[in-house]
Amino acid sequence: MASAISLPHLTVIKLEWHAEGILVMSFNRPQYMNSLSRASCTEWKQVMELVHQTPSIRVLVITGSGRAYSAGQELPTPKQNASGEEENERLRANIELSRQLTKLLITSPVPIIAAVNGPAIGYGCTSLALCDLVISVEQAVFRTPFAELALCAEGCSSVTFPRILGPMVANAMLLFCRAMSAKEMHQRGFVDRLVKSEDLMPVTMGVAKELASRSQAAISASRSLLRHQELVDELVRVNDREMDEIYKRATSADSKQAIAAILKRMQSKGARPKM
Amino acid sequence: MASAISLPHLTVIKLEWHAEGILVMSFNRPQYMNSLSRASCTEWKQVMELVHQTPSIRVLVITGSGRAYSAGQELPTPKQNASGEEENERLRANIELSRQLTKLLITSPVPIIAAVNGPAIGYGCTSLALCDLVISVEQAVFRTPFAELALCAEGCSSVTFPRILGPMVANAMLLFCRAMSAKEMHQRGFVDRLVKSEDLMPVTMGVAKELASRSQAAISASRSLLRHQELVDELVRVNDREMDEIYKRATSADSKQAIAAILKRMQSKGARPKM
Amino acid sequence: MASAISLPHLTVIKLEWHAEGILVMSFNRPQYMNSLSRASCTEWKQVMELVHQTPSIRVLVITGSGRAYSAGQELPTPKQNASGEEENERLRANIELSRQLTKLLITSPVPIIAAVNGPAIGYGCTSLALCDLVISVEQAVFRTPFAELALCAEGCSSVTFPRILGPMVANAMLLFCRAMSAKEMHQRGFVDRLVKSEDLMPVTMGVAKELASRSQAAISASRSLLRHQELVDELVRVNDREMDEIYKRATSADSKQAIAAILKRMQSKGARPKM
Repeated sequence: MASAISLPHLTVIKLEWHAEGILVMSFNRPQYMNSLSRASCTEWKQVMELVHQTPSIRVLVITGSGRAYSAGQELPTPKQNASGEEENERLRANIELSRQLTKLLITSPVPIIAAVNGPAIGYGCTSLALCDLVISVEQAVFRTPFAELALCAEGCSSVTFPRILGPMVANAMLLFCRAMSAKEMHQRGFVDRLVKSEDLMPVTMGVAKELASRSQAAISASRSLLRHQELVDELVRVNDREMDEIYKRATSADSKQAIAAILKRMQSKGARPKM
Repeated sequence: MASAISLPHLTVIKLEWHAEGILVMSFNRPQYMNSLSRASCTEWKQVMELVHQTPSIRVLVITGSGRAYSAGQELPTPKQNASGEEENERLRANIELSRQLTKLLITSPVPIIAAVNGPAIGYGCTSLALCDLVISVEQAVFRTPFAELALCAEGCSSVTFPRILGPMVANAMLLFCRAMSAKEMHQRGFVDRLVKSEDLMPVTMGVAKELASRSQAAISASRSLLRHQELVDELVRVNDREMDEIYKRATSADSKQAIAAILKRMQSKGARPKM
Repeated sequence: MASAISLPHLTVIKLEWHAEGILVMSFNRPQYMNSLSRASCTEWKQVMELVHQTPSIRVLVITGSGRAYSAGQELPTPKQNASGEEENERLRANIELSRQLTKLLITSPVPIIAAVNGPAIGYGCTSLALCDLVISVEQAVFRTPFAELALCAEGCSSVTFPRILGPMVANAMLLFCRAMSAKEMHQRGFVDRLVKSEDLMPVTMGVAKELASRSQAAISASRSLLRHQELVDELVRVNDREMDEIYKRATSADSKQAIAAILKRMQSKGARPKM
């Protein structure tokens, strides 16, 4: 039984501590399909820092509140009266935050189990590939529509997707924007288990508790072999490379245009922008 | 809408230009199951050079005329009265051509979509793994019978097949000459979509047009992350290594014997040699 | 037809020579589910040395006698009156033997076909990933319960499993101790063919004979491309890294405790310890 820990006060992420050593975090903006605002990423980063610093956390579980897992990073809505330079500065800061968050996921000292309760889109999908295990409801969909937004692969998906799904299926998702059903993601080895909605948390917590009950030194030894130093170093480099490209893309005219068109379409439908 | 381009005059490959930026090339020796003669490889290389040099080509589609996709490279039929040295010189020239063609596929600046309309054998199969997406008819078969001919893996299949299919299934094809159905290639993530014959070109052109309509800078950015420089460099080295081995194999007594036996068997059936 | 060879006299492994160039070895401790004792590993190593040294062996087939393929390495039962230092010395010697055996599998000069006749557990499962082809009966199960024993991944499974099964499914087996059915291992590309028990050896010997009938130089050329030097060097390093970790694990208090608990449970059921 692990000791109690003191949890930070968060606003758009919900935390729950289980004395077995399991921290459960839920994206908590259900009204926006848990799209990741600046605040979401800042708080997620805080959670990851807590995981890195707290030996009594043995497993991290990530899930979403409401019907979506996460609709990905919010699309950058240009601020009224902001200059192009201010806009780019804001983009640069957001991308730097993503870069740091992804690095903290890559280097997580403990296993991360994702419990996918609904659509996983953009970074909500690519970040799953950095987890140790993905359990998903049958009706979830997985999409990385970067090309539609004139953006590019991120979250290390340019190397994790080819390894998990095979290079061809990775192309289908990352270049051709093909949406994948949970069933196909399971067939392709991305999702370990498919469950009904009502079974998602019971099954996930069962797996997490079993893992937390094992020798942590043994889990850590196997993990350090599976995520060996060369692999971690490579992922960190890939993350940097992707973030450099995404800055170029996000500040380009064609991406601003593609995003503006999508935002316009969404606003006319009364929806909130997300990626 | 991309500008018009001037197409070279070819004899065994058919070209079709779509103003959206899509070049469609068809292997066009249906009477020989589109086996790749010296002329086929020379013309294919010309097409690849065109693709490398013409910015208005946004997507290349490769397919076959008639009932086969491609039966692979023609088996070397020894010329009457040619000395062993002349024979080996001819083999060396053919292999050098393959090497250059494979390199142009590896480094293609734009996505290649293969529309597999029937059997894909030998290089007709291995070269698919260098494409970005493979769409196939349900009745296609995929075979790499190198061991039967006392030859060895080529087209970078010694590293692309393990990555796409997994190392075990790659062994089954490349060492054990197991034929694969389109259905299994789809299950294994080599083929992205299985379609009926009549849907092959409509579906393929739909995918190609959607891709061509996206920001080319964005597609190029994601592709440069997926096909990053280290990977391209590795494939180029693997291609060289394979071509060195295949020259040794093709000039060996056991390969000449295995091929002569197969040619004899085929000629007695009135068929044309192919690999 | 290959020449006759002289077979060593073994006690817990059965050898059978087929004049086509096929050596069949069977784990032969059916009463212990073919768990691998010190003697088993020593004899298996002898077989691998024979394979390395005997050009007339063209294919090695590995299978199990009785109902199991192999239950893996025997759990170290502490000797009565042995000091902690003596115990650790014994563990070190066992691990050194495993290290050498794994290296001989990695560098096998000829294809190895595994005919899995029943449960494949621990090293009995991880060593399969070093074979060239796995044929399995439908009712076999595959398990690597290292975490349950507070041990860690071995047999190069920390890199072979992610490549064959994909990183997520590899985690499920190596970190989360998920048991896999033969059917799932086939879907995931680990098992090439699923057969009924009565067909296992006929099918396997058919595949082996076909392979043995091919040009050995050609098979060797394709194998040297598939198992190229960088890959072999990497696997040798990974093996060393895993064996270093497993020594730390096996001599740790938590592993000794976990194993003692399991041995106690097994002995109370009258079963023999195995991993």
